[in-house]
Amino acid sequence: MSGPDRYDKIIELCRRRGLFYPSFEVYGGVSGLIDYGPLGARIKVNLLNEWRRFFVDSSPDLVYETESPLVTPENVLEASGHLSSFTDPVTTCTSCSRTFRADHVLEESGLLGESMTMRELDEAYSKGVVCPVCGGKLGKPAVFNLLFKTSIGPYASSAGYIRPETAQGMFTMFRRAYEAVREKPVFGLAQIGRVGRNEVSPRQGPIRLREFTQMEIEMFFDPEDPSAGVPSTYEDETLRLQVAGSSETVSLTAKEALEKGLVGSPWLAHYLAAGKRFVEGLGVEPSEQYFLQVPPGKLPHYSKETWDQMVRVERWGWVEVAGYSYRGDFDLVNHARHSKSDFTVYKQLREPVKLVRKVVRWDAGKIRRLFGAKTGQVIAKLKNLTEEEINEFSKKGVLEIEGLTLGPEAISLSEEEYEERGRRYVPHVVEPSFGADRLMYAMIDHAYTVREDRVVLMIPRRLAYPSVGVLPLMAKDGLDVFARQALLKISHAGFTVTYDEEGAIGRRYARLDEVGVPVAVTVDYTSLEDGTVTLRDRDSWRQVRVSSDKLTHSLDRFIHGGEDLESLGEPLNKEG
Amino acid sequence: MSGPDRYDKIIELCRRRGLFYPSFEVYGGVSGLIDYGPLGARIKVNLLNEWRRFFVDSSPDLVYETESPLVTPENVLEASGHLSSFTDPVTTCTSCSRTFRADHVLEESGLLGESMTMRELDEAYSKGVVCPVCGGKLGKPAVFNLLFKTSIGPYASSAGYIRPETAQGMFTMFRRAYEAVREKPVFGLAQIGRVGRNEVSPRQGPIRLREFTQMEIEMFFDPEDPSAGVPSTYEDETLRLQVAGSSETVSLTAKEALEKGLVGSPWLAHYLAAGKRFVEGLGVEPSEQYFLQVPPGKLPHYSKETWDQMVRVERWGWVEVAGYSYRGDFDLVNHARHSKSDFTVYKQLREPVKLVRKVVRWDAGKIRRLFGAKTGQVIAKLKNLTEEEINEFSKKGVLEIEGLTLGPEAISLSEEEYEERGRRYVPHVVEPSFGADRLMYAMIDHAYTVREDRVVLMIPRRLAYPSVGVLPLMAKDGLDVFARQALLKISHAGFTVTYDEEGAIGRRYARLDEVGVPVAVTVDYTSLEDGTVTLRDRDSWRQVRVSSDKLTHSLDRFIHGGEDLESLGEPLNKEG
Repeated sequence: MSGPDRYDKIIELCRRRGLFYPSFEVYGGVSGLIDYGPLGARIKVNLLNEWRRFFVDSSPDLVYETESPLVTPENVLEASGHLSSFTDPVTTCTSCSRTFRADHVLEESGLLGESMTMRELDEAYSKGVVCPVCGGKLGKPAVFNLLFKTSIGPYASSAGYIRPETAQGMFTMFRRAYEAVREKPVFGLAQIGRVGRNEVSPRQGPIRLREFTQMEIEMFFDPEDPSAGVPSTYEDETLRLQVAGSSETVSLTAKEALEKGLVGSPWLAHYLAAGKRFVEGLGVEPSEQYFLQVPPGKLPHYSKETWDQMVRVERWGWVEVAGYSYRGDFDLVNHARHSKSDFTVYKQLREPVKLVRKVVRWDAGKIRRLFGAKTGQVIAKLKNLTEEEINEFSKKGVLEIEGLTLGPEAISLSEEEYEERGRRYVPHVVEPSFGADRLMYAMIDHAYTVREDRVVLMIPRRLAYPSVGVLPLMAKDGLDVFARQALLKISHAGFTVTYDEEGAIGRRYARLDEVGVPVAVTVDYTSLEDGTVTLRDRDSWRQVRVSSDKLTHSLDRFIHGGEDLESLGEPLNKEG
Repeated sequence: MSGPDRYDKIIELCRRRGLFYPSFEVYGGVSGLIDYGPLGARIKVNLLNEWRRFFVDSSPDLVYETESPLVTPENVLEASGHLSSFTDPVTTCTSCSRTFRADHVLEESGLLGESMTMRELDEAYSKGVVCPVCGGKLGKPAVFNLLFKTSIGPYASSAGYIRPETAQGMFTMFRRAYEAVREKPVFGLAQIGRVGRNEVSPRQGPIRLREFTQMEIEMFFDPEDPSAGVPSTYEDETLRLQVAGSSETVSLTAKEALEKGLVGSPWLAHYLAAGKRFVEGLGVEPSEQYFLQVPPGKLPHYSKETWDQMVRVERWGWVEVAGYSYRGDFDLVNHARHSKSDFTVYKQLREPVKLVRKVVRWDAGKIRRLFGAKTGQVIAKLKNLTEEEINEFSKKGVLEIEGLTLGPEAISLSEEEYEERGRRYVPHVVEPSFGADRLMYAMIDHAYTVREDRVVLMIPRRLAYPSVGVLPLMAKDGLDVFARQALLKISHAGFTVTYDEEGAIGRRYARLDEVGVPVAVTVDYTSLEDGTVTLRDRDSWRQVRVSSDKLTHSLDRFIHGGEDLESLGEPLNKEG
């Protein structure tokens, strides 16, 4: 199943059979951009739909899909912190003028560049680092913003950017969405969409892209009641966690990880476990994945706690396919401040709470004598003292008002009971964020299998494209007519399907196996006699004979139901 | 069903219930950008999936989905003509400095600005046009490019743009895709994806957007055999066509339109008819749509023939929801030239053709005497004469080679028979291109119905979201438990579903009707006795009682099968 050049073989297969390849290849390509071709785009669509089913549709009245634009005005990304913090360190060669990721150059010399702060990079570069291309001296590291910049409308002054994450569209629509879901205290917004990150010099083929598809959920909840509404579905799922600072993973259930405080929020623990199961469903065994906690110094600017879901792929080793962050109230608070809008929600307390507060009382006669015409103004001020001012008075015993110092002769402090019936708060956010393209690659990497010197792409059946191949044993004697009728029936039943009558049947099976078509329907001379066809399993190469009346039902059980081929009909002896 | 302010009511409904609303609204919004909210995004996903089923999956081995990036390097859009031709005329007020679409300002004064050439606009403006905002004098119209510009990577010199159409990604990947589909002479590439058009001052809410979702097919075929592979599926479909220059529509079948030469290509006729049926499937009656031919002077730069599919919406009148263009070989030829790549395909002729060509023969001795050491060079040249040079010689009787004039004494013309077995050609392209967001709005506009003073959004059942509402008559006595179990079962069966137990049952039905949930499952006291539930049809408000064993099967027949409610169970008398 493995070998030193599996990556090259996969890339070759994907180009040749049209799964994916570099974009704009005839123009020499643009690094970090890939196309999905005739046989790959639809597999990606299946992957997106699988995510939608798993994370959105299966959580009715809890998680809702949304869509917002890529083009984002500057003030949004200023508020979100991306304008100042969404950066990579770069260095330019003083000799050949090429620009590189300053941290990656160090990584290539065996140093831990990626985990260095800007100051540490500066120090490393001050000792002299040579250009990996021309050997010249690399310059002092600088900060490069990864946002694709553009302008909106005919005025060059209206700066806009391609969004670096779908998340901000969900935060800015929070108020509208909150009202649309009838002010649920716990709900999630989800989005599947493209984002852009203007990487300095992306390599690693489909792994590091300048434009890719994110699948994100922003789960909003009351920070005072963080476990409300969290389903117990995955609490017994075992997670492999590598805590920041540790060099080893520990295995424990989501529930245990939460109870022991390794994971800081119930929603975070829930989504780690759900994410593990989802990725497992793409064909990546639990032993091939773990969660790596991001150390405090390397956390994204918005995050209090982040776990990266790591998946092993042959060429690149452990690769991040998803990130799970506790974003707290960072985004909503910042958008509230920058947009001067209200992002709080109101919650009624289960029982009103009796509380005591300090209030300032005054001697109206004294005040009038002291302030004369200004009395009304001063009393208004006394009525609206801030908590801070009242505390100040409580500490010092005097209060400055309109240039005069008032002491106990004019004002006094007393305590007052009051009832709190509700409270306003800014929801906190837990965010699972998946990279669809990395998942797609990881799925293919794990599906790539060599059997008897032939490639079989063992993509999970329901994610493969097409789902079914229809093959007449010969393209004559009416076998082709029978097969084309079967194709129509299969297509009308909603399956994706392909027809192939060219070449020997063994070669045709091989062509289907190579791109992962899970089942082949073969029409032979017996079909003409009794109306049966054979089904051939891509993975086992075994065949059974089923009645064509039950064909679409059998295909449904095999592809969506995940049933064994043998449960569908009479086994045949031949393999092929 | 209509009224002067239906648009405002729809917009209000969509904002309030979370179907769509302006993007970045808390920051004052950006015109031309909209968000789809918790109840709208999923309807749009259903629309995209419907298109995919209709145009891609139902054409196995003919139309293939692809995906390519939005970020596009400059050379691609230079080759495609967008850099020079994808423009709108603008005018800036000499007094208040506001910028407007020069043609739209004239439209608002009742002139036909949109159909004017740049010269005609110049002339109109030279007579003086006043600013619609401040009344100042508007300046001379200028050309504004609608591409969102950015730069790729850390070098500001690598210009890139957000693609204005998905098409270019499919043209640039043509060679790879052609090989992946095993060199089919006829095949289509499809793409569903976002595009950006930096409109000058978009108004018309969801109709004119700066970023939107396109659904496009590029159908490639042999221009010498343009009807090969065209299905007859829609040839008898009646089309309403308004030919360029005419002020009236004619009704005829797709087949007739093609035979009479009104529509210039079989694939074009096929897609016009398919498009009509697709839009009809979204709930837009044939009488509410027609095809308008774009006059020669207003054709897009790449097109030889374009038809706009017009749909009536209440506020904006006839709106274009799709464009059908005969792009010929414009794009492939231009990309071939700019990228210096081969975009031709080879076709074997059914029978080899015997042809005659002129060849130049020479007297080797004469040539040697004339050219001496240069002889080899000259003979190589004579062997590789272009067709043009040979024709030149045939006409003039002499040929200039290396500074000498050769006449019949040294070279002569003769004819040679040869056999042509195959031919290389550049495929031609027919492109249907749909705007998903306009279709979404048109669908809602046509679905918006008022019944007994209540809004019912009669979206086609299979496009609605959620598909099913589950309501316990009362949230007690175990009705809620029964209902929640039904919800789980419905969700597991793959339907989108919502649960509602708050308020009177009539109010809950109304809430579902308003956003178009096609069917409500109600659990009442009889359910507890005999396990039956009621199904209520959104449109007729009628109810039937069905066994909960058959519930998901009944829902499938109603939602996907389009069956009448009455065919599913025992009718109830009450409406509500």
